[in-house]
Amino acid sequence: MKRSVFYVSDRTGITAEMLGQSLLSQFEGPQFERHTLPFVDNPERAREAVEAIDRTADADGIRPIVFCTLVNEAIRSEIRASNALVLDFFEVFIAPLEVELKSASSHAVGKSHGTGDLRRYTERINAINFSMAHDDGLGTNGFGEAEIILVGVSRSGKTPTSLYLALQFGIKAANYPLVSEDLDKQRLPAVLQPWRHKLWGLSIRPERLHQIRSERRPDSRYASLANCRHEIQAAEALMRMQGIPFLDSTNMSIEELSTTILHQTTLSRHRY
Amino acid sequence: MKRSVFYVSDRTGITAEMLGQSLLSQFEGPQFERHTLPFVDNPERAREAVEAIDRTADADGIRPIVFCTLVNEAIRSEIRASNALVLDFFEVFIAPLEVELKSASSHAVGKSHGTGDLRRYTERINAINFSMAHDDGLGTNGFGEAEIILVGVSRSGKTPTSLYLALQFGIKAANYPLVSEDLDKQRLPAVLQPWRHKLWGLSIRPERLHQIRSERRPDSRYASLANCRHEIQAAEALMRMQGIPFLDSTNMSIEELSTTILHQTTLSRHRY
Repeated sequence: MKRSVFYVSDRTGITAEMLGQSLLSQFEGPQFERHTLPFVDNPERAREAVEAIDRTADADGIRPIVFCTLVNEAIRSEIRASNALVLDFFEVFIAPLEVELKSASSHAVGKSHGTGDLRRYTERINAINFSMAHDDGLGTNGFGEAEIILVGVSRSGKTPTSLYLALQFGIKAANYPLVSEDLDKQRLPAVLQPWRHKLWGLSIRPERLHQIRSERRPDSRYASLANCRHEIQAAEALMRMQGIPFLDSTNMSIEELSTTILHQTTLSRHRY
Repeated sequence: MKRSVFYVSDRTGITAEMLGQSLLSQFEGPQFERHTLPFVDNPERAREAVEAIDRTADADGIRPIVFCTLVNEAIRSEIRASNALVLDFFEVFIAPLEVELKSASSHAVGKSHGTGDLRRYTERINAINFSMAHDDGLGTNGFGEAEIILVGVSRSGKTPTSLYLALQFGIKAANYPLVSEDLDKQRLPAVLQPWRHKLWGLSIRPERLHQIRSERRPDSRYASLANCRHEIQAAEALMRMQGIPFLDSTNMSIEELSTTILHQTTLSRHRY
């Protein structure tokens, strides 16, 4: 069974999407067909949104579910008049917060994913650029500036995790691959030795690594299960010997890896 | 005035943070001091969370505000017993959805930022790797596979926007810089010509570009206001002549740029 879902927002729609996804992931039955209507910030756009919702309700033969994050009450009530179950996040939570904080909310649109404080936004962009420039063993002379350096064998998840740490939390995250030479010698690469306190490891199960590497270089020695097993065993032995904490990335998303690292280190995030 | 805020989650806390940030951005008064308590997924962790909240309430002399996304009702009611205003997202919205969908929610933890469907998760990671490998003019022979190619002068915001498109929406986004030679000739670089339909431009105000470039290379010709003015004027003229749509990134965050591009093109996102 199909059920249509709309995310309606006066800005990007990212908050509405994330909240809606979080709720819908709790329901296994229907196939949700999702639409985002961003930038609904005037009465005309609100009417267009209502038309789209109502048309879909007619076509589906069942009313859609609408998640919205709308700060303007007039626009919100337009949307509420559509033929849908309308769940509005601001409507429910703003009132108790106004009471608790003894202050009226600003009803200002677009606060949550805007550039906001320019200094902080610039720091975030700098962290992204830093992580790009210190990916996969690049820019090792900048490691003094890194807040964390992820290590692990090729394709263990270092690059996407570094980028997520930078993008979401504004953390300058470098990463450095552990390659055969280091693994065979069971020695930490010389460029990493001064920064042992900043190292965090990623490991992965051999079967999964074999699968990932096979997509890139099928039937290579690099991708073979035997080699994956050998590299991972050696990398884990090295990390244990060096006292480098590590996580198994096999079943963890980059969100889970990043928040776990943040939680288990004394790293401090630069943005919420 | 300071007010403590806790984000309490049975998984990463990312949803709780986004909800809370979105709401708190509507209040200008107090200075919010934020703490995230992730992975609160058993009674012991719940008790620790309550202790932390209650200790903070005592120290502050005013009860904290708690945003939580907890699917387990027993854990949720432990948290509700703390000395705080507790706003629980699942509690409010799951019930109307259960009625509407005529089905019980699964109460399964960690659905929303997990790896979920492995095929889709792999696509997302591939998009991130693609965007890394096709950043700033790299890998031009892979442009056939790109879903979008961002163009613009150096430091106009191409790199962070490409990465955000990949990370958030699973879109393979390349980017290519417009440099003096192309700008002087008012000609699209040869490598871009076959892909005109995939091009999207970023522009920026000269004063802001001057400021950004000056941080990297102070007092250089590259960073001078006159040069920034000249490059931007030429880039915009070229994009207009070539019919390449473009956005001004000066006051737009990467979230706003990415969602606007998604909204104004026929690009389709690969993940919600």
